[in-house]
Amino acid sequence: MGDYVTRVSRNQNFANLSAGYLFPEVARRRRDFQERNPGTKVISLGVGNTTEALSPRVAEGLRLGAERLGTSEGYSGYGDEQGSGELRAAIAERLYRCPIAPSEVFVSDGAKCDIGRLQALFGREARVAVQDPAYPVYVDGSVIAGAAGAPAADGSGYAGIAYLPCAPGNDFFPELSQAPEFDLLYFCSPNNPTGACATRAQLEELVAFARRRGTIIAYDAAYAEYISDPTLPRSIFEIPGSREVALEVNSFSKPIGFTGVRLGWTVVPEELRFSDGTQVSKDWNRMMTTLFNGASNVAQAGGLAALTDEGLAEMRSSIAYYMGNAALIKAGLDRLGVPNYGGTDAPYIWAQFPGKSSWQAFEGILEACAVVTTPGSGFGPAGEGFLRFSAFGHREEVAEAVRRLEAKLG
Amino acid sequence: MGDYVTRVSRNQNFANLSAGYLFPEVARRRRDFQERNPGTKVISLGVGNTTEALSPRVAEGLRLGAERLGTSEGYSGYGDEQGSGELRAAIAERLYRCPIAPSEVFVSDGAKCDIGRLQALFGREARVAVQDPAYPVYVDGSVIAGAAGAPAADGSGYAGIAYLPCAPGNDFFPELSQAPEFDLLYFCSPNNPTGACATRAQLEELVAFARRRGTIIAYDAAYAEYISDPTLPRSIFEIPGSREVALEVNSFSKPIGFTGVRLGWTVVPEELRFSDGTQVSKDWNRMMTTLFNGASNVAQAGGLAALTDEGLAEMRSSIAYYMGNAALIKAGLDRLGVPNYGGTDAPYIWAQFPGKSSWQAFEGILEACAVVTTPGSGFGPAGEGFLRFSAFGHREEVAEAVRRLEAKLG
Repeated sequence: MGDYVTRVSRNQNFANLSAGYLFPEVARRRRDFQERNPGTKVISLGVGNTTEALSPRVAEGLRLGAERLGTSEGYSGYGDEQGSGELRAAIAERLYRCPIAPSEVFVSDGAKCDIGRLQALFGREARVAVQDPAYPVYVDGSVIAGAAGAPAADGSGYAGIAYLPCAPGNDFFPELSQAPEFDLLYFCSPNNPTGACATRAQLEELVAFARRRGTIIAYDAAYAEYISDPTLPRSIFEIPGSREVALEVNSFSKPIGFTGVRLGWTVVPEELRFSDGTQVSKDWNRMMTTLFNGASNVAQAGGLAALTDEGLAEMRSSIAYYMGNAALIKAGLDRLGVPNYGGTDAPYIWAQFPGKSSWQAFEGILEACAVVTTPGSGFGPAGEGFLRFSAFGHREEVAEAVRRLEAKLG
Repeated sequence: MGDYVTRVSRNQNFANLSAGYLFPEVARRRRDFQERNPGTKVISLGVGNTTEALSPRVAEGLRLGAERLGTSEGYSGYGDEQGSGELRAAIAERLYRCPIAPSEVFVSDGAKCDIGRLQALFGREARVAVQDPAYPVYVDGSVIAGAAGAPAADGSGYAGIAYLPCAPGNDFFPELSQAPEFDLLYFCSPNNPTGACATRAQLEELVAFARRRGTIIAYDAAYAEYISDPTLPRSIFEIPGSREVALEVNSFSKPIGFTGVRLGWTVVPEELRFSDGTQVSKDWNRMMTTLFNGASNVAQAGGLAALTDEGLAEMRSSIAYYMGNAALIKAGLDRLGVPNYGGTDAPYIWAQFPGKSSWQAFEGILEACAVVTTPGSGFGPAGEGFLRFSAFGHREEVAEAVRRLEAKLG
């Protein structure tokens, strides 16, 4: 490589992104372990990645969606950037217990991508708050948009982000009365990584707080279908008064195994407005039509199949499979006396290892059991001392991982 | 809707976006015409949207990609955010006549989306230049990123964008010596909307200019496969010295009809660096892994099938079909004595209507012939007085449109 450099300045926002994204670092340590232990079968309870084949109805929908593009009658080019009208209506009708208009549903290529676009929507002036710990994309998206500023030298986070600690002591619900001023709060329930699922009373408090402050809640409901307790809200929009202060991001990835197929959506209620009265949905629509070009029509056909009666029944069954894994992990940790949370209405278990840092606990389990987890500190300062166990995996591998944990750590 | 508004400020960048995106306005006028003329069959030579069924090998690849997700052996969840290694290698090997490393190919959900991410990569401080006329997404993406500033009241464009006029008088190649200072130039060849295809000498001049100035060229090669003249470069990377000053956006949309399937890629050479020496590919990789989650695995399977020998032969045949349409349109305009450009190495014909504004010419043809075109002024100030004719369409409809033009305008 030569010495030539352009005169174009690097975007400072990228320089501000802290080194190593969490999951690449986990992968690196796993590779390193595997190289040192070539004969050992490593089992991952790390990344939340679906592992089971698509269910029959969904697979058929996807196949038919692909096949019809090979026929003159069935071919279609660009679709509406917001998603097909049929899919928007089906999402609104079949996945919500509260009234949502199809025009409020914006179909996308997934929640991660929508979160990136969300931060671009609100811009660099928006003051951002996150639950701590949190899915890393909220903060990283804010950094790229220039809303987070520079990272603190001690690794405690970004100057421009308000971190709201969520821990066993506050039932994983932030002390809102003590929160600094902010514009936008990313709130995830069922929570990644803690597995906590907000109660109706908590969400009522959250909505009342947002209405008093005039802030906007970006509610991440990507795991809503994993809620088993029917009294728990599945959407922020089940809470009266929420439509003026919240939007909701969601995804087909985890409920029907579309992690690789890429399909999600965001609901922006028509009542949600900026301070000048502009509807947030107007700018979101502009974002989606200007810089996005629609989710794959094949993926949309699969999503539509998942929302038929048979598709929904299959979805319940897929979720039950992974939640069976969660129960195994939770029972194992319980028998070991490891304090743990979540795992009943979310596919994640949040386990506490007092006296150890997250990376120490991670390394301990990797070396002793050849089991990969995710260090809680990677999700934010308040995650220190925890590990996240993911319930995604083949049943026999999850069972084997639990056996190893009990044998080596017991 | 109630009176409640949040206290969150609207992002000024969205307020800066000029009203009506071009194509929605065209669609509105078409609907209006159809309502006034319910018995008339409107033919569109407007939007550049593919219309013909996927070719057999590509359709099969897509179907198999969908089918295998329904099997335990074939299922896959998250893939690499940069695309599968196999597809990256196939793109590098089969679509370039110059050496490109697979690691320099970043697969995406399409060129439009990549252009949006590009502007976020360079940030709001980057000074942007565009060919005038140009594909609207370059400017709109810059506006959303805050790099364009406010629009001029007279509709002549944005304060922060350098518009480089491209017209018959300069062979549609900008007068670079007269260009103001800028960091990033969006350059599209074969050009949308003018249909002009840059020669080797022009691209050599462009690269020499960029190297002198230290600027970066974002080269949009989405129509490269439509080049029929084998002496014309298909990639900026065929020009020596380009790897230090250019990146290239490309797409499967137009060559294989994946407009709705969504698959594209961007090549970022390892030699391309910011002024501080940071590789642009490092930050682009971070962008793709942080805010994007990979193109649909089904779409990637289709793309891979298109890059087999049979797939490539089918691609040539699909392109020949649309280029046959282009020849029909061009011949019709020639017989009418309408000055026109492009249409030989690009699927667009750029036609000049002296004495008329673009919207007047658009309305005249819509009212007289029930044929939809795209007003040139929608692509930038220098597009005034032109119309873009798209060669995408069923042959019989294109032929009928040309008959109507000759009958009514002759």
